[in-house]
Amino acid sequence: MPQRPLACIILAAGKGTRMKSDLPKVLHPLGGMPMVNHVIRAAESLSPEKIVVVVGPGMDNVAAAVAPHPTVVQEQQRGTGDAVKAALGALAGFSGDVLVLYGDSPLITPATLSAMVAARAGGQNPAVVVLGMRPADPGAYGRLILGADGGLEKIVEFLDASTEERAVTLCNAGFMAFDGARMGTLLSGIGNHNAKGEYYLTDAVAVARMAGWSCAVVEGPTDDTAGVNSRAELAGIERIFQGRLRQAAMANGATLLDPDTVYFAADTVLGRDVTVGQNVVFGPGVTVEDGVEIKPFSHLEGVVVRRGAIIGPFARLRPGSDIGEGAHIGNFVELKNTKFGAGAKANHLTYLGDADVGGGSNIGAGTITCNYDGVLKHRTRIGQNVFIGTHSTLVAPVCVGDGAYTAAGTVVTRDVSAEALAISRAPQEEKAGWATRYRAAKLALKAKLGKT
Amino acid sequence: MPQRPLACIILAAGKGTRMKSDLPKVLHPLGGMPMVNHVIRAAESLSPEKIVVVVGPGMDNVAAAVAPHPTVVQEQQRGTGDAVKAALGALAGFSGDVLVLYGDSPLITPATLSAMVAARAGGQNPAVVVLGMRPADPGAYGRLILGADGGLEKIVEFLDASTEERAVTLCNAGFMAFDGARMGTLLSGIGNHNAKGEYYLTDAVAVARMAGWSCAVVEGPTDDTAGVNSRAELAGIERIFQGRLRQAAMANGATLLDPDTVYFAADTVLGRDVTVGQNVVFGPGVTVEDGVEIKPFSHLEGVVVRRGAIIGPFARLRPGSDIGEGAHIGNFVELKNTKFGAGAKANHLTYLGDADVGGGSNIGAGTITCNYDGVLKHRTRIGQNVFIGTHSTLVAPVCVGDGAYTAAGTVVTRDVSAEALAISRAPQEEKAGWATRYRAAKLALKAKLGKT
Amino acid sequence: MPQRPLACIILAAGKGTRMKSDLPKVLHPLGGMPMVNHVIRAAESLSPEKIVVVVGPGMDNVAAAVAPHPTVVQEQQRGTGDAVKAALGALAGFSGDVLVLYGDSPLITPATLSAMVAARAGGQNPAVVVLGMRPADPGAYGRLILGADGGLEKIVEFLDASTEERAVTLCNAGFMAFDGARMGTLLSGIGNHNAKGEYYLTDAVAVARMAGWSCAVVEGPTDDTAGVNSRAELAGIERIFQGRLRQAAMANGATLLDPDTVYFAADTVLGRDVTVGQNVVFGPGVTVEDGVEIKPFSHLEGVVVRRGAIIGPFARLRPGSDIGEGAHIGNFVELKNTKFGAGAKANHLTYLGDADVGGGSNIGAGTITCNYDGVLKHRTRIGQNVFIGTHSTLVAPVCVGDGAYTAAGTVVTRDVSAEALAISRAPQEEKAGWATRYRAAKLALKAKLGKT
Repeated sequence: MPQRPLACIILAAGKGTRMKSDLPKVLHPLGGMPMVNHVIRAAESLSPEKIVVVVGPGMDNVAAAVAPHPTVVQEQQRGTGDAVKAALGALAGFSGDVLVLYGDSPLITPATLSAMVAARAGGQNPAVVVLGMRPADPGAYGRLILGADGGLEKIVEFLDASTEERAVTLCNAGFMAFDGARMGTLLSGIGNHNAKGEYYLTDAVAVARMAGWSCAVVEGPTDDTAGVNSRAELAGIERIFQGRLRQAAMANGATLLDPDTVYFAADTVLGRDVTVGQNVVFGPGVTVEDGVEIKPFSHLEGVVVRRGAIIGPFARLRPGSDIGEGAHIGNFVELKNTKFGAGAKANHLTYLGDADVGGGSNIGAGTITCNYDGVLKHRTRIGQNVFIGTHSTLVAPVCVGDGAYTAAGTVVTRDVSAEALAISRAPQEEKAGWATRYRAAKLALKAKLGKT
Repeated sequence: MPQRPLACIILAAGKGTRMKSDLPKVLHPLGGMPMVNHVIRAAESLSPEKIVVVVGPGMDNVAAAVAPHPTVVQEQQRGTGDAVKAALGALAGFSGDVLVLYGDSPLITPATLSAMVAARAGGQNPAVVVLGMRPADPGAYGRLILGADGGLEKIVEFLDASTEERAVTLCNAGFMAFDGARMGTLLSGIGNHNAKGEYYLTDAVAVARMAGWSCAVVEGPTDDTAGVNSRAELAGIERIFQGRLRQAAMANGATLLDPDTVYFAADTVLGRDVTVGQNVVFGPGVTVEDGVEIKPFSHLEGVVVRRGAIIGPFARLRPGSDIGEGAHIGNFVELKNTKFGAGAKANHLTYLGDADVGGGSNIGAGTITCNYDGVLKHRTRIGQNVFIGTHSTLVAPVCVGDGAYTAAGTVVTRDVSAEALAISRAPQEEKAGWATRYRAAKLALKAKLGKT
Repeated sequence: MPQRPLACIILAAGKGTRMKSDLPKVLHPLGGMPMVNHVIRAAESLSPEKIVVVVGPGMDNVAAAVAPHPTVVQEQQRGTGDAVKAALGALAGFSGDVLVLYGDSPLITPATLSAMVAARAGGQNPAVVVLGMRPADPGAYGRLILGADGGLEKIVEFLDASTEERAVTLCNAGFMAFDGARMGTLLSGIGNHNAKGEYYLTDAVAVARMAGWSCAVVEGPTDDTAGVNSRAELAGIERIFQGRLRQAAMANGATLLDPDTVYFAADTVLGRDVTVGQNVVFGPGVTVEDGVEIKPFSHLEGVVVRRGAIIGPFARLRPGSDIGEGAHIGNFVELKNTKFGAGAKANHLTYLGDADVGGGSNIGAGTITCNYDGVLKHRTRIGQNVFIGTHSTLVAPVCVGDGAYTAAGTVVTRDVSAEALAISRAPQEEKAGWATRYRAAKLALKAKLGKT
């Protein structure tokens, strides 16, 4: 069957009071990306014609985060049925299937959504497809009651359920797929005669059944549907998310010495025979090629690390950096927006910002680029096979030519020619016996001050 | 009912042989504070008239740790009954309730203790109130056998228990509250006719029942009563303790990216919308205001971090520091006893000790204060909107005026006027072709030395 | 009974396809040491006459790793029976017991192997002793079926097992001990009439029983026998291995603030009353004496840390270093191949490579040794009670005499006499009002460039 046109509605209007935050709940990050953007990414994997996000009043930052997808504002919090109705206005003229997702349930996967869409188009042409799950503890979840034909007969809230119904382990996960043609009718049929006076989207199933339309269930992994209402739940979701990425990295041929201490962003790419030590944090935009070793206590964002390079421990690689093949970045070394050549080394106590370092160069301990003059930023260019001496200061913009040396302690303010030595140094003097006199004077002063 | 006077006895005489330590067991730290001080803090929450700590011979360091609370020495280890009897001497003239706690059970909470005190004063005026618990595995714990009226009938040691008694899941947690007026009588009634020849405090229940006095049980959380006999158990207690602090921080509106990797001290204060990255350690005395971001691999002690500041990764903040609103402390940066102004930045490879930094100043990479002259410590004062150049050395005592600059590599030994530039630098020279000759000479030497 | 001669065969020919690695599976490290070397170490604990390792074609790196033990090459992967047969060639002339181990099961312990060897020599003189285990989930493991006399009757593969046999919880762990005299006969009797056409070593039990020879089972801990087929399983094994070392360290009198975050090498030695903070990594070759404190975020390899020293946080100690009694190594400090005297301190942002530091010396913040001239490495010698000023650069080879000082920012290229002061410094100049003009010019330039 050809795929029918699809639209996705993402509910993101909840205030998230229990988060105790000034930030709308759906903007809290998972793996460094707002939760709602994870949901959008999952929705986009189905190539829908349109994605509409329902936000609450004043949530301009949510609108900004989901752009270019449009938002509609649900003026009052009158339930999920009301929120979806608000979104339908933005779908005028659309006919096809409509999937309803939740901005605070960011672990939903393309596979589960695809199964729902497939079920909508198959079977007995169900008006509604509901995502079911079997949590370890069904607790107070609504139960999905199936009919003899395997179709969804009804959703029973736990409080209204009989003992027999409570024994059912198939629970309502909240995600739903609708036949767009019948959706308006269904939503119109939902009432708000309940304790909270809200319109519940789940009631669409009862309305459909009343109309004689069939409904269906697709069962998905419980993890997929986990929602976030508190910071503790957010931490729980992050743990599941990280677990998925860690398993994938290992299955792909990377060794994680202690997987529980390696933190990925959603877009981290690790090659084969990469070894990642304990306590390594990947921010967004990191690609690590084959055979790289990342030692413990390293922090990487926005960087490409090429084949066979060795990073850390205690290394910080910041956005815009590119670490060449076989290069070494050692401890207490920070690179920002720096292209670091093949086989080059910066092993100790160094900051390279806005720099280009040629292949084979050796950056001595305590090297620092002055890339910022207090107003503007400038680049430092270091050639190939350069030897930058200990405690060198490179005042950008400045170039050091191929094969050049800088002497220890040099402040490089002018370009250095290839194969030359740059040096700025006062001669070493010795004041004999100075230390003896100095200590005596200091100790006398200390005694006078009454310190011990 | 008005609260009766209360005294607390804390048993802390145990040698803790299994700790394999020169330090008395109760001084081993939990969340950076000796275990016995956690117990004292819980006891103090009840505002008792007196707290007496029972120690073993030679435990002067325990006495020092619990001061100003008095200690009594239990000369020989003859059981808990004997230890409490030793403490009673220090309570001469006191009449009221007496609570017995354990110096190696530091997770006890004010809520649980309050419930015990309330039970002592209520019901049938019990002579003894025993804290009960229901551990997941009751194992060899003594069982609490209740009477028809819900009162405590007896405590049965596991070895003496019948099959029916072993099936009881309510276990003896050891903590007890006594009616002080009857306590002397009870303790006198405890014998030592048992395998070890020791006086067991739990026998007070049997003595009370023999006298026709009622006893009661208060049930508390099992975690509250966990005791420490080995380093592994200490680690287990620390895990529970940290878990409590993490949950509280999240409930209060802080995001912990991986809660299991954030370590708190008992007095850590985190504001709302604070984000704490993975692997952050808080020592004692840290207050973090709203909206602060603490990046991974940071270590803080004795510091106030004000609104919206950004800390880390790889930052170390040491006692006596105060980080101003919106300030940035970056990687490989250490501050000690330093007041760091609003909006100021120290982003790379810097040590500021005993310094004042004015608002809006920029501390260049590799800046170091020389606060120690080998004998005394001195302060460095940096004004507002100052630009400290890369690799600057500030030899204290010294002042840098508002708006001043220091050139890269400058050693500042005299005060710098406002809006001035301070510079100490030898001119940069270039020795053309030096590197070619140098490498050739070194390689020749290497060959001569037979190295490869 | 006198111990019989013993030989060990270690099977290490597996390709480990699921590891997705260019490295043979058995060379993947556990606790920093290749898995196969763990197995060899366990085998060596029994003092066998010979250890033979069976490798696959082209696995020269495995042969190198297990040297001086010999290897034989199994040319085709035709099953474990075939692999052992290949090894027997290398045992010509040997008569005694033969133990078969697995290069990808590195958690096997000497105690378990000893029990197998003892069982081989005892009981009814069994031709084969099989290691059994009782995993939490017996799943698809082969079941060990015992006879009425407690001997091993047969090994039933899960697929061939009856319902009754599947209910048996004693499973085949794969490790086997053979009577060498009967081993050739047993191996000859093993056929390959099975789905994969391979020779299975476990079939030796059926062959023995057919010949009327008894077989025996020794039951061992399930953890001992865990094998590795994927990176995820490798991580799981590492977790068990680390757990063993952590428990041992705590039982021995060390406090691990969060044991799950302390990573040991197999040979790490920790003394009594050592405290190890969160997130500490020990590479190979570390000995920590009594009373040492290692603060969080420290990384140590190949170093002795003597009594009462304090290390970290954020310290990196590299091979060849020796930290003296009571010495302090602070944050962002790296030592390599450096002997650091008693009571000496290097607390901030320092790199000491190939250095000797005398007792009581104070190494100022930002001190760096230039131990590498681009071609050769040289030593730096610092005497006792020396004060190295902030941002000093020590260009090796160089000596600083006892009690000497170096001024802040000095580049030391020549030896410094005892009690002298070494200084190389350009005088501090002040350019009044420079900052005002500079900022104005820069801002004008910025405006001209159209930046904001």
